[in-house]
Amino acid sequence: MNKLTILIHCSDQSGIIASVTNFIATNKGNIVYIDQYVDREQNIFFMRLESEFESATFKTEAFKHTFKQDLADRFKMKWRIYSTETKPKMALFVSKYDHCLYDILGRYNSGELEVDIPFIISNHSTLKPIADSFNIPFYHIPVTKETKAQAEDQQLELCKKHGINFIVLARYMQIVSSKIISQYPNKVINIHHSFLPAFVGAKPYHSAYKRGVKIIGATSHYVTEALDAGPIIEQDVARVSHTHAIADLIAKGRDLEKIVLANAIKLHIKRKVMVFNNKTVIFS
Amino acid sequence: MNKLTILIHCSDQSGIIASVTNFIATNKGNIVYIDQYVDREQNIFFMRLESEFESATFKTEAFKHTFKQDLADRFKMKWRIYSTETKPKMALFVSKYDHCLYDILGRYNSGELEVDIPFIISNHSTLKPIADSFNIPFYHIPVTKETKAQAEDQQLELCKKHGINFIVLARYMQIVSSKIISQYPNKVINIHHSFLPAFVGAKPYHSAYKRGVKIIGATSHYVTEALDAGPIIEQDVARVSHTHAIADLIAKGRDLEKIVLANAIKLHIKRKVMVFNNKTVIFS
Amino acid sequence: MNKLTILIHCSDQSGIIASVTNFIATNKGNIVYIDQYVDREQNIFFMRLESEFESATFKTEAFKHTFKQDLADRFKMKWRIYSTETKPKMALFVSKYDHCLYDILGRYNSGELEVDIPFIISNHSTLKPIADSFNIPFYHIPVTKETKAQAEDQQLELCKKHGINFIVLARYMQIVSSKIISQYPNKVINIHHSFLPAFVGAKPYHSAYKRGVKIIGATSHYVTEALDAGPIIEQDVARVSHTHAIADLIAKGRDLEKIVLANAIKLHIKRKVMVFNNKTVIFS
Amino acid sequence: MNKLTILIHCSDQSGIIASVTNFIATNKGNIVYIDQYVDREQNIFFMRLESEFESATFKTEAFKHTFKQDLADRFKMKWRIYSTETKPKMALFVSKYDHCLYDILGRYNSGELEVDIPFIISNHSTLKPIADSFNIPFYHIPVTKETKAQAEDQQLELCKKHGINFIVLARYMQIVSSKIISQYPNKVINIHHSFLPAFVGAKPYHSAYKRGVKIIGATSHYVTEALDAGPIIEQDVARVSHTHAIADLIAKGRDLEKIVLANAIKLHIKRKVMVFNNKTVIFS
Repeated sequence: MNKLTILIHCSDQSGIIASVTNFIATNKGNIVYIDQYVDREQNIFFMRLESEFESATFKTEAFKHTFKQDLADRFKMKWRIYSTETKPKMALFVSKYDHCLYDILGRYNSGELEVDIPFIISNHSTLKPIADSFNIPFYHIPVTKETKAQAEDQQLELCKKHGINFIVLARYMQIVSSKIISQYPNKVINIHHSFLPAFVGAKPYHSAYKRGVKIIGATSHYVTEALDAGPIIEQDVARVSHTHAIADLIAKGRDLEKIVLANAIKLHIKRKVMVFNNKTVIFS
Repeated sequence: MNKLTILIHCSDQSGIIASVTNFIATNKGNIVYIDQYVDREQNIFFMRLESEFESATFKTEAFKHTFKQDLADRFKMKWRIYSTETKPKMALFVSKYDHCLYDILGRYNSGELEVDIPFIISNHSTLKPIADSFNIPFYHIPVTKETKAQAEDQQLELCKKHGINFIVLARYMQIVSSKIISQYPNKVINIHHSFLPAFVGAKPYHSAYKRGVKIIGATSHYVTEALDAGPIIEQDVARVSHTHAIADLIAKGRDLEKIVLANAIKLHIKRKVMVFNNKTVIFS
Repeated sequence: MNKLTILIHCSDQSGIIASVTNFIATNKGNIVYIDQYVDREQNIFFMRLESEFESATFKTEAFKHTFKQDLADRFKMKWRIYSTETKPKMALFVSKYDHCLYDILGRYNSGELEVDIPFIISNHSTLKPIADSFNIPFYHIPVTKETKAQAEDQQLELCKKHGINFIVLARYMQIVSSKIISQYPNKVINIHHSFLPAFVGAKPYHSAYKRGVKIIGATSHYVTEALDAGPIIEQDVARVSHTHAIADLIAKGRDLEKIVLANAIKLHIKRKVMVFNNKTVIFS
Repeated sequence: MNKLTILIHCSDQSGIIASVTNFIATNKGNIVYIDQYVDREQNIFFMRLESEFESATFKTEAFKHTFKQDLADRFKMKWRIYSTETKPKMALFVSKYDHCLYDILGRYNSGELEVDIPFIISNHSTLKPIADSFNIPFYHIPVTKETKAQAEDQQLELCKKHGINFIVLARYMQIVSSKIISQYPNKVINIHHSFLPAFVGAKPYHSAYKRGVKIIGATSHYVTEALDAGPIIEQDVARVSHTHAIADLIAKGRDLEKIVLANAIKLHIKRKVMVFNNKTVIFS
């Protein structure tokens, strides 16, 4: 059986839902899930469908072709159609912190993340033993101011070679340049260790400590060229008090970072995230 | 313009979504929101639609008639169609605690709750001054073991006279009998001051204290004949510690009760709650 | 019986705790609660004690005198001693929003807040009926750019006349100037409708909406001359999604604002907040 | 320098705090932290002190001796004195689930848990590779109804041989009998996958699904002979909805279980938990 996930957005107009659901029915598909949302401020229509096509003669490419002709062009839709059978390929970028790496690989190992991880890239060799223990190829690509452009070329080459669909920065402590972002728009997921937009940039736990906040947070977002300002996918928070020294905030924050990043990855893998105007629509 | 909210549930079958959305389109309606869910365990399909019908000749009753003939009978649907223009009428039952009453009336006054409150009923006269200050008729109907049946008759009579659509027990400290429940199935909303199913029955804060839990909760549910066992609409929790005496749990709990009950009322008013098999499907 | 709450902070030194507890014992007091904290970054010692003195001849003023001589001067302490019998006097400043006002007066009425509220001040007359229904004097003092200085004189005069100990800005939509702050240092409590330091200033819900955050918050803090930058007393958050329009954020935020402000007031009333270096130490 | 953590509880009496702090001062110790709590219902006094003794001639054993004579006997205290230099030894019991094991070993590896883990025991061999990758000895001790008594003898023998101080059941799917509990009273930490006291026993996620709760939880507690009824150390919760199938509850629950168990272990290691009357006092 063919299972497709269809993502659509376009200007809000009368009759879109009926047209799309009709189209699925005409193509002998069954709609398993339908999610829809209209941004009234911007007048944008968003839709996500999971559909099953049982016919033995069903061809995804042909379906896409008709979808474009009969629907997408008519409503001026931006659209994507994914086959749910193909696992997306995810590249992991890390530096020296191991908590997010352990967490992701633990979930990967237990089958919680339906994804392939062809390799791990790091600007340090520190975490190689962890990659080894999970039998995942580890590429140590050092980054200095001088070698950055070249390092990113190497990174991109690996990504292309392995057909990488999206990149996860699991506490990767380098700024990723537009060279990579432009190849993977809304496909580079970062975890920032603060409740954005509070405490943008380096050392957010130090800033949180200094400001005396009573709650800290972590934010997973798609990377854009504006630092820590990309579309937010997921956030979570934890209560702290004056008794927490900076080291305690960092330790508490690690738990937030792990969970928030894992949730963001899961939403991305299931194609539940749509991006528009630097914000996300999340069909969860 | 006519705005309708349509709630449907039935056995899951191929083609329901397309049929319904088609039907709306055929009747010159525009779908504003569509929410849908399939309970895979029980194979039940749930759907909620908000639709607008601009035609000057549109008649809700005629639409309902055709809906039944063309769709509901075919798919063996349970269905309800509400006009969003008519505000539901809500009866408030209280006893001596005032926090939920203040909270609801405050929200009502500020326009947050799109509902009419024709009257407040209480088995005590304690809260009459609050009802007075909000200019809402207050009926003092004492309840004793002997007079309970008679008191419920009086309550029901008031409800009928005012066309009450649903009843909110805002810390009403009497068990409501099947006489009322059968007239208002899944339409009597209670707030229980614990995280159900923990601490059913009286004095849940005392039980929570004795057990030494680190988190307390509140639960809003539809009243059924089984005590505190009806379908859960909303729950929330708050962290506590050994330093909280019972009085502190009660005070903290009041804040939970207010918010949880208000949220449940709002979901009910917006027809976002569907009940099946003693559980709720909430389209939020 | 005399019950005192003692607050102390000073440079951290050996022997403070033993000296203080000894001093209480020598004065025939019994320590009911002791809380203590050392800020290791700044090397500051903080302490809060609740003590009971049963002796019929105990005189608070004499105790304070000896405390200063024997302890405070020796350790160079900043200290305050409160008799727990005297209820603090709280002035309420409001504008047009009623949710925090209702909430505070509801708690006040039910005895949850051990405080006196001699009056309510507003720059609008909108909320007078609420003040009336709770039988609390209401002073309408309009504020324009031109009359601001004069209005604050009136406000201060009322505060002095009634022996006000602290001021609560319950969604008072005017900036309070240094004229008032200097008279009530760390004694003017504000509720800001965002998770500070994110979204300082006006219209934070609009900014939160624009940024696409997945969690909103509210922050109660002492007012200082730097806008929304004073010591944070309490914060709380609520989860939101893309489906929440600005009006929904505002409605959800109201619930946060009420609870956060009420909690901050309770901490202040119980003298559980100490301020140092623009941060709070909260002994809860 | 000698650092001691002192835990005390006894009937509440006048003068305990002054006597204890005096005693520390007389022994040339400096109090680093003092935490104290009185259970007014039961009239029990609890205290936790961290003290430093700089003297070169300080002897912990002699100090304990004097403490008993001068203080503990006089106030009829239950007391424990720990040297903070000695790392406690923790035994890990697991079955087939790996998420808590990965989490604990990841934290252990990164230095977050100040503990020694001499070995891992399991009734299955499934998780041996994980133990191997962290270089921790793994003992496979199968348990059947017939061999249970014998298996527990083996477990206890290993614990004694390695001087185990406390046992962590990291989703160990066997009931631990009184044979082990009596040797490790309030020293066997379990993680239960529900918000206790709701859903005691097996398959709590199935029960939570059936009841239609809107929030699920996890609870870490000391094991007593009453199933899932021991003193609660830590709890946490997560919001769920009707869209979560049982498998989703289980996946969400795993994240709760990891965090809750890790927090309970950290509190235990830092000697911040006192148990009285089947409840915990937690000085955090």
